[in-house]
Amino acid sequence: MNGHYIAGFVDGEGSFHIAFQKRDDLKFGWQAVPEFHINQNFTSRKVLEEIKKQLRCGYIKANDALGKRDKTLVYVVRDRLDLIEKVIPFFERFPLHTEKRKDFELFRKIIQMMKKNDHMKIEGFRKIIQIAYSMNADGIYRKRKMEDILTTLTSSETIR
Amino acid sequence: MNGHYIAGFVDGEGSFHIAFQKRDDLKFGWQAVPEFHINQNFTSRKVLEEIKKQLRCGYIKANDALGKRDKTLVYVVRDRLDLIEKVIPFFERFPLHTEKRKDFELFRKIIQMMKKNDHMKIEGFRKIIQIAYSMNADGIYRKRKMEDILTTLTSSETIR
Repeated sequence: MNGHYIAGFVDGEGSFHIAFQKRDDLKFGWQAVPEFHINQNFTSRKVLEEIKKQLRCGYIKANDALGKRDKTLVYVVRDRLDLIEKVIPFFERFPLHTEKRKDFELFRKIIQMMKKNDHMKIEGFRKIIQIAYSMNADGIYRKRKMEDILTTLTSSETIR
Repeated sequence: MNGHYIAGFVDGEGSFHIAFQKRDDLKFGWQAVPEFHINQNFTSRKVLEEIKKQLRCGYIKANDALGKRDKTLVYVVRDRLDLIEKVIPFFERFPLHTEKRKDFELFRKIIQMMKKNDHMKIEGFRKIIQIAYSMNADGIYRKRKMEDILTTLTSSETIR
């Protein structure tokens, strides 16, 4: 499978996403979780497996673990080192061409900020939230509003 | 834009489809219309334009001509000679990898049958309808049932 084929497929079907999870044990009460994923019908499992093989990372799982209604699969890469060393260089070599390219670039920017530990400083973490919410059509699909995270950040000052 | 990129993009976003239109002026009362198309949000117009350029055929239009609600665009190739000489050889050179590959192969088969004028004979036309309805997940998206076409074919015997 050609790398450009994968780029074209991902440009239509893939997603570069930063999830936010409530984590009271962490410094600001929230964790930013970068994730690359591709959703597909189960009939396209082979393609997901081939992409996984070529990217040399990630895993494939059923979206609905019980498999009762939702018959879709998802290929996921969440490991930060895999994202830095495998996923990002891959899409630098085989570029995207739709608007998703901007999402990829913002995704990379956030991961680079996290690599520099910017997310450990309140201003850096705020910036990451703002960039993340500007991605994927301004996050219209998100359940949680950006303000819900920004206003509930527990700064280290507050904790002390 | 690399040809493999286009194949990957089409594998996710494109469609090989045989439409059926009521045409009382034609031999069997129906026309089979092969069509290749790619739907996209208007933000991806550039990609559609680049694909159109590389395939050297087809046109781009708004799905909703008035552009009021539906902001999507569609790249369409309906010209049979373009399908035979440009679209089909392109996806033979840059192969699809999902289940859509089967749809492409059935689409090609129907176009080859039509090139041999099989659709001018009632048995050939019936066969084309049956193949067309086996495409794209057995045509679950179709408004019209296969039987509605098969039972209303006006054979030349009937006309005479």
